[in-house]
Formats: sequence, structure tokens, C-alpha cells
Amino acid sequence: MRIGILGTGVVGKTLGTKLAKLGHHVHMGSRAAGGATAKAWAREAGGKSLEGTFADAAAHGEMVFNCTSGMASLEALKAAGANNLQGKILVDVANPLDFSKGMPPTLSVCNTDSLGEQIQRAFPTAKVVKSLNTVTVGVMVEPSLIPGVHTMFVSGNDHQAKAAVIDLLKTGFGWKEVIDLGDITGARAQEMYLPLWLRLFTKFKSPNVNIHVAF
Amino acid sequence: MRIGILGTGVVGKTLGTKLAKLGHHVHMGSRAAGGATAKAWAREAGGKSLEGTFADAAAHGEMVFNCTSGMASLEALKAAGANNLQGKILVDVANPLDFSKGMPPTLSVCNTDSLGEQIQRAFPTAKVVKSLNTVTVGVMVEPSLIPGVHTMFVSGNDHQAKAAVIDLLKTGFGWKEVIDLGDITGARAQEMYLPLWLRLFTKFKSPNVNIHVAF
Repeated sequence: MRIGILGTGVVGKTLGTKLAKLGHHVHMGSRAAGGATAKAWAREAGGKSLEGTFADAAAHGEMVFNCTSGMASLEALKAAGANNLQGKILVDVANPLDFSKGMPPTLSVCNTDSLGEQIQRAFPTAKVVKSLNTVTVGVMVEPSLIPGVHTMFVSGNDHQAKAAVIDLLKTGFGWKEVIDLGDITGARAQEMYLPLWLRLFTKFKSPNVNIHVAF
Repeated sequence: MRIGILGTGVVGKTLGTKLAKLGHHVHMGSRAAGGATAKAWAREAGGKSLEGTFADAAAHGEMVFNCTSGMASLEALKAAGANNLQGKILVDVANPLDFSKGMPPTLSVCNTDSLGEQIQRAFPTAKVVKSLNTVTVGVMVEPSLIPGVHTMFVSGNDHQAKAAVIDLLKTGFGWKEVIDLGDITGARAQEMYLPLWLRLFTKFKSPNVNIHVAF
């Protein structure tokens, strides 16, 4: 599959590398093409891996991952271009964490709205699927870093898009349990879980912590 | 132990009945003494179970449970009286759910504050412990309704108070895993989890759903 990755931080690089290893054709995008980080990543990821602008990456992808920081995501997606996202599966991995008021971070949007919903409203022809935002980046692509069965969530308005993401999560990344929380308003639940995750991260002094849904 | 229960709804009645069965001396309180619900409860709970006002119940308890609805909790606790709560363990079970704007409910406080913190600030000499708010009432007192090991959380500023609550949760109610999230600001994490719980409740069409922390 042709994959676009928006954001050259550790999340973008880790997802990009894993997807390239799985045989996907990955194009990483950032604010400007030719940055040192993105060029080094493309060399190391090998295969047909490319780097360029947000727009280049979005135009390339059949599935596009938003791996930009949550506070900058809407701007980055605007730079990627609505036309380049039209009809595409847009996996929103970001969390709207606001670090400007110190630690712990707060959410810049929550309760009556979410970043996932904001993105879906701003890009109505994209098929936004919120996922992967509830675990640390290493666990996203290697769930076995945490023992036992634990849960990944998805939410989104398009059933086929969610099915494609769930398939990638399960067969590509090795997730054993993926729970579909329904339409994109489920992103509120996924993003508002972050304060609990941050608390558990602090307590256990390890980011390798997740939850298993028991019922 | 002498227990005060504030609130005669299903949460107050269920916790009160369980605590009476465990041999505790339970006093249930509501806005006015002598209500039909509270009187019927006291008869059925048996033993030394009593009913009366919020103030009666708080004065009675060594440990007091706030089982009022979250939007009304501060008012109910004011009626219970700061003097009657002084030095007491105050277990805050409530969620600040606002149903006035339709379903799903939103939180009337979150992100930069929580109901647990509001209560601790309003009653600085009480030892507030946030707990039990993350599961349905049946599961609170009978965790085995959900198979396997799943997690209850506590947060609060007073270590001895938390230890007493954890002991009751484990030896009284049968919780196998209780995680201490730290000081009372952990209540934000516990309350902001509610949207995820509500989503899971809707999905599985059962309130008997909880999470297990995996790490």
C-alpha cells in the first residue's frame, strides 16, 4: 500500500520504518522537503521510502498517518492540502496535548469536542480514523512489549476505512484486540484517556503501559 | 467501622447494604430525614443501620462515602457540614456528569480540575479519596461480576486514608488490583476516563465493563 506519514518526529519515523519493513511504500512529509531527519530516515528505511513536504506525502498515500503534534495538526493537514486527502484514509494518531502551562500537560480540546472530530470537520471528504494515540510509540508497532492481551481502539465514521486500519493493526502490527468505539466522536474517549495514561506512566516509570478491556 | 453514606440513590443503597452486611455500622443520609427510600433501606439493611440527614450521616461516620450525583455533591457536602467531615476519610464516588445537554453526558469539570479536587479544596480538613467512580455500582461491591483481574483506582493526598480505603476495597469488596494514582489531582484521570467507559457500555450493551492495567 502507498502510505503517507505526516510528521518526522519519533512517532512518524517509527511508524514509517515499521510500515516500510512490512513492504509498504512509505512517503514521509514535513514542513519543508529535504530536512536532515527525513533524509536520514528515508535512507535507513530503505526500499522505495521517500521524503518530501506534507503535500507530497499526502498526495502519495492511499492511507495517511497524522503523526504531527496535536497542537499543530490542523495547520499541518492544511499544508498537506484537502485535495491530497480527499477520499483517503486519514489515521489520526495525535493527541491535543498542551505543554504550554507546564506539567502535566492539559488537553487543548476535550469533553464536547476532540482533535479527531476537528480534523474530520476540517477535511470532510477524508475518512478519519482515530487510533494508536493511547499507547507510546514503541507499543504502537510492537504491542508484545507489554505482556498479555491489551486493547487498541479505533473510531471513525467510515466502516471500510476502520476495517482497513484494523486489518493493518492486527496483521501488520500484531494487535490482538482492537475495539471499534463507533463514530468519530469516540475520539473524545480516546483522547480524554490520556490523563490516566500519563498518571500510569508516571507511577510505573515506564511508557510501556496500556489497558485491557474486561467485560 | 462507623460509615456515613451521603445519597440514597442506587449507589448509596448498594454500598450501604454491602457495608452493613460486612458488619459495619452504616448511617445513610439524604436531604431530609425520614424519606421513604431511606427508611425502607434501613429496615432491609438491618443490624444497626440508620437513616437521617446528610449531617447525621457525616457526623456518624469515621469513613463517609459521597454517593450523591456529581452536579449536586458540593451542595450536599455543605449540608453535611465541614465540622462533621473534619479529619474524616471522605470517599468520593461521584462523577460530575452533566446530562442537561442530552446524551452522552459531558463532564461539568475536567482537564484542569476535577470534582475530587473541588471537594478537597472546599473541605480541606477532610481526607478525600477518589475511588469507585470508574465502574457501575454492582461491580463496585462485587468485582467478580467481571471475569479476571481488573483494576480499581484510588487517589488522594492522605496516605493513611488511602490505605484504609484500599483495605476495604480488597478485604471487604474483593478487589484484587487497586492502583494508587497519587495525590488528589489523580481524580482528573479517574473522572476523564468516564467518556471511554460510557462508550464501552454502549458498545457492549452492559455496564459490567472495566479495564485492567497491563504493563
